[in-house]
Amino acid sequence: MDKRPIGVFDSGLGGLTVVKEIIKLLPYENIIYLGDTARVPYGTRGVETIRKFSEENVKFLLKKNVKCIVIACHTSSAVAGKFLKDEFKKIPIFDVVSSVLNGLDDYKGKIGIIGTRALVRSGVYLKFKNIVQKACPLFVSFIEEGEIKGDLIDRLAEKYLRKIKVEKLVLACTHYPIIERIIQRQVGKKAQLINPGVALANDLKKHLEKENFLNGSKSNGKREFFVTDLNDRFIQVAEMFLGEKLDGRIEKVSIDKI
Amino acid sequence: MDKRPIGVFDSGLGGLTVVKEIIKLLPYENIIYLGDTARVPYGTRGVETIRKFSEENVKFLLKKNVKCIVIACHTSSAVAGKFLKDEFKKIPIFDVVSSVLNGLDDYKGKIGIIGTRALVRSGVYLKFKNIVQKACPLFVSFIEEGEIKGDLIDRLAEKYLRKIKVEKLVLACTHYPIIERIIQRQVGKKAQLINPGVALANDLKKHLEKENFLNGSKSNGKREFFVTDLNDRFIQVAEMFLGEKLDGRIEKVSIDKI
Repeated sequence: MDKRPIGVFDSGLGGLTVVKEIIKLLPYENIIYLGDTARVPYGTRGVETIRKFSEENVKFLLKKNVKCIVIACHTSSAVAGKFLKDEFKKIPIFDVVSSVLNGLDDYKGKIGIIGTRALVRSGVYLKFKNIVQKACPLFVSFIEEGEIKGDLIDRLAEKYLRKIKVEKLVLACTHYPIIERIIQRQVGKKAQLINPGVALANDLKKHLEKENFLNGSKSNGKREFFVTDLNDRFIQVAEMFLGEKLDGRIEKVSIDKI
Repeated sequence: MDKRPIGVFDSGLGGLTVVKEIIKLLPYENIIYLGDTARVPYGTRGVETIRKFSEENVKFLLKKNVKCIVIACHTSSAVAGKFLKDEFKKIPIFDVVSSVLNGLDDYKGKIGIIGTRALVRSGVYLKFKNIVQKACPLFVSFIEEGEIKGDLIDRLAEKYLRKIKVEKLVLACTHYPIIERIIQRQVGKKAQLINPGVALANDLKKHLEKENFLNGSKSNGKREFFVTDLNDRFIQVAEMFLGEKLDGRIEKVSIDKI
């Protein structure tokens, strides 16, 4: 048993959709979340910058004495995942991209990947042959602005997805589960949507069980949320992603201290 | 005469619409531009963060031996303008918000202000009584994604602007001049659009003339462009804002060095 928290980081608040899945599967675990809201988004930035920011996030979580680290950000997973695992060898690091790749390992059907420009450019999913990728950059802005139903988002979804004909579609951006229904309507009911947060929570649970690192408690874990920038609007957005009230449990940390 | 360059900074690349107006009016001046593309956008961030980033940008420009500083970013002008002028008293600092305020000083008609959430929240334009403000946060994402014509941007403009009935409308975000025509169509031909870049370039010219600080050269000035993050897409976007080719004249600087 290991009562230390699980550390999760993301470029911003979208990673809370991953935390939501971890809580569903591992309710007794303590969780420390860091959202780099002062420097979000990562998806439009260069490789070197994404690695630097990601490295600083890991260092922050290590100071909090976490037992493992989850990279909830797809861009960071794709661009900095291997780099971080090489640099921080002593701590198990899970990332959303690896969990999706593991889950799709033997799959032979047609796979679609939607995500940020940086995620698509990274080519991290191109190991599959039967694959189609599409960057959908405006989805993130729409979701963060609460434009998640109505004519405008429907038209945007149509623009991005009308040519996508696949059997499985990976929602390769933390934000997309919020508009799962709109995406499903566009790609048709037969396409199976893959939420990487679910895949990652499963991997994490297996690891903690196998290594005997589960918390062992029978009451709900403590969850602490840190962000590098905070305003009232962020709290609303965070609650949308997490699917529950934060009730002041979100704290700003200075980027100098990361 | 003063051959030192004019220093301009912005949260990202949008400030190049201001540089474009400065070049039109003051073609012989040398210009150094800093776009904080590693940390763009500022418009969604908190006051303290915006001040810290803005201060770092000024320090970078001061090291480049500039003769004056232009804050091309509306959010930074509104939230950090006074703060920067108090801190850096030895150098003249111009900002887009002050130039607009000066130009509208005695105006009694109905004024509209459109900009980012942070700009609107700052209340910097509320000294006018007959004013209506509207945050249009998705315009920036659309423009940066090149979604600047067609059905989607028209519908977004309609959503934001259909209730705006004014005589003058301030485009209080560096990006908006790019979609000037779309905005004009929505608010009607009679509304006069105010491009703060033009107002600022006028103020700057008057100052340089009055203080005898003009460059004095008769050939086009040297223009250097620095960004804190660079990728191929940024160059395309920068050229859209500047309205001319950059031809490799854009250089990445590390944020550690700011």
